[in-house]
Amino acid sequence: MRVEYCGVCHSDLHRIRGVLRDEGDLVPGHEFTGTVTAAGAAVAGFALGDRVAVGTIVDSCGVCPMCQAGQENFCYEGATSTYGGTDRVDGTKTKGGYSREYVLREKFAYRLPGGLDPAAAAPLMCAGITMWEPLRAAGTGPGSRVAVAGLGGLGHLGVKLAAALGAQVTVLSRTPGKAADARKLGATDLLLTTDDKQMEQARGRFDLILDTISAPHDVPPLLRLLTLDGTLSLLGFPGEIPLRIMDLIYGRKKLTSSGTGGRRGTAEMLASSAEHGITADIELLPSARVQEALTRLDRGDVRYRFVLDLSDLG
Amino acid sequence: MRVEYCGVCHSDLHRIRGVLRDEGDLVPGHEFTGTVTAAGAAVAGFALGDRVAVGTIVDSCGVCPMCQAGQENFCYEGATSTYGGTDRVDGTKTKGGYSREYVLREKFAYRLPGGLDPAAAAPLMCAGITMWEPLRAAGTGPGSRVAVAGLGGLGHLGVKLAAALGAQVTVLSRTPGKAADARKLGATDLLLTTDDKQMEQARGRFDLILDTISAPHDVPPLLRLLTLDGTLSLLGFPGEIPLRIMDLIYGRKKLTSSGTGGRRGTAEMLASSAEHGITADIELLPSARVQEALTRLDRGDVRYRFVLDLSDLG
Repeated sequence: MRVEYCGVCHSDLHRIRGVLRDEGDLVPGHEFTGTVTAAGAAVAGFALGDRVAVGTIVDSCGVCPMCQAGQENFCYEGATSTYGGTDRVDGTKTKGGYSREYVLREKFAYRLPGGLDPAAAAPLMCAGITMWEPLRAAGTGPGSRVAVAGLGGLGHLGVKLAAALGAQVTVLSRTPGKAADARKLGATDLLLTTDDKQMEQARGRFDLILDTISAPHDVPPLLRLLTLDGTLSLLGFPGEIPLRIMDLIYGRKKLTSSGTGGRRGTAEMLASSAEHGITADIELLPSARVQEALTRLDRGDVRYRFVLDLSDLG
Repeated sequence: MRVEYCGVCHSDLHRIRGVLRDEGDLVPGHEFTGTVTAAGAAVAGFALGDRVAVGTIVDSCGVCPMCQAGQENFCYEGATSTYGGTDRVDGTKTKGGYSREYVLREKFAYRLPGGLDPAAAAPLMCAGITMWEPLRAAGTGPGSRVAVAGLGGLGHLGVKLAAALGAQVTVLSRTPGKAADARKLGATDLLLTTDDKQMEQARGRFDLILDTISAPHDVPPLLRLLTLDGTLSLLGFPGEIPLRIMDLIYGRKKLTSSGTGGRRGTAEMLASSAEHGITADIELLPSARVQEALTRLDRGDVRYRFVLDLSDLG
C-alpha cells in the first residue's frame, strides 16, 4: 500500500529515544491510512485503489486462545509490531508508516470506511482502538457513566467514542480551561481533580474511568470516583505502581489495563466511527516537518494528534 | 440473641494482637449463630426461639449509595463492625460473639435456614460470604472456570460455593497432598503452583481466581492463569503490593478485591447454602478452649475452621 497519512504518537517518541540510545535503526509509524497499490495473487478482500488503514500490529500466530478470540494484540507468541517487530516470514525488522509504502498481510489491513477523512482517521488505528476496547469490555452503552482522565491524543478520542456509545461522559482534568474543549468533544462536564470538594462530591459516580494520563500518578483518588463494581482502566501509564488492596475492597473496584486492539474490535471501531462521523482532531504537517511534530508532541503542544502527510513523498 | 456457636478466624487473631499492644479491651467474634431470646416491640421478622445467624457488620448508615445497593459492608460512613466498632446509637464499643448474648438490630440478623447445622453454618457468615460475593460479582455459573488459591477457612468454602454455582473448580496450592481434600470439597483438580510446567500449561485457563492466600505473594503468576478479561480477586491479603500494569495489559486482566458482604448477598448465600447443603468443615471446641483454637489457627493447624461452642456457658 501507498502510505498517505500517519499519526505521530508518544510511543513513536519513546521508541525513537530508545533507538538513539542503542544506535539501532527504526522507521516509526503504527497508525496510518493509504491506498492499495499492489496486491498478491491470493489477496481476496482488497483491490488496487482501495482505501486502507493499518494499526499497531501486522501479524500474529493465529492459533493461540487470544488470536482465536480476535485479540491478536495479546497473541501468546507476541504479535508482530507494525514497526520495530520481527517479520514472522523472513525474520527482518518491520518498518513503519513514516514511509512511502508498506507491505503487509491482507488480514491486518482494514478497509477505511467512506466518509472518514483519511488523515484524521489515521489516529483511530492506535489511539482510537486503545479507547474502544476497554469501553466495549466494560459493556459501555446508553446510561453508562464514563470518565476520561487526561485530554490528549487518547483521551479526546475516548470522549468521542464513549459519547457515541451513548454514555454520559465526564473529563477529569487539572486544567479548568479544558472544559469548553471537553464539551465540544461530547462530554457533559469537566471535573477538576485538584478541587477536593468536586472530587468528594463525585465519589462513586462512574462505572468506568479511562485513565489516559501518561505520567506516574496516584490511582486511589480515581478509584474513589468509581461506583460499586466499577472499573479503572489504566491506559496511559504502563509502568509499576504501588497498590493498596484496601483501595479496591470497598466497593469491589476493578483495576485493569489494555492496549490497542484485535482485528474484530478494530473493524467494529472503524464501523462505529464511520456511523458517528468520528475521527481525531488533528494537526496535519508535511512529512518533512516530522521533527517539529515530535518536539511539540514531547511538550504536549498539540490538540490532539499530529498526522504526517506522506503523500508529499515523491 | 443467645450466642451458641462462633467461628474463630484470622481477623480475630489479628485484632487480639492489636489490642494486646494497645492494652484496649475487645470481645472478638463476628460469624456466629444462635437463638432469639428476646425481641423489641418493633421487631417484626423474628420470634423467640428462632435460629439466627450474624456476620461481620451490625449497622450502617442505610442511605448512602452502597447501603442502597444492598452493600452495607461498603457503607460510605463505615459499617458498624460486629465487634470493636462504635454503636451508632449509644456510641459504646461493640462486643462480639465470644460471649453468651448479643443484641443487635433486626436488620442485620439473618434467619438460619433449617437443615444447616448451626455450628458448621457459623463460618458462612464471614468466610462464606467473602467467597460468595466475588463469585457472584464475576457472574459465576455453569461452565465458569474458577480457581481457588489457598485452601483454608476461606478457600475451602470458596470451592464448595463455586461448585454449587455450577463452576468447574481448580485448587491452586503448593501442597500436592491437598489434592484429595480439594476433590472432596468439589474441585475437579489441583494445580501445583510450584510446578512450572503445570503453571505454563494452565496459562489463560480461568475466568476467575479467588486468591485467599493471607501472606504477601506474587500476583503475576496468577494473572497469567487468567483468560481474556479474567478477574483475580485478592481476598486474603489486604496489604500493599507492587503492580506492573504490563501484567494486566495482555489479556485485559482485572485485579479486584472484596470483603464480607451486604444484606442482600448474605441472605442469598444462606439460601444457596441451604439448597446445596453447604456448611464449613469445622472443628468444634468448648468455649473454654478458645486459646487453643487461636494458637493452632496461628500455625495453620485446622481443617478448616474452628468454631467455639458457647452453648456451654451458663
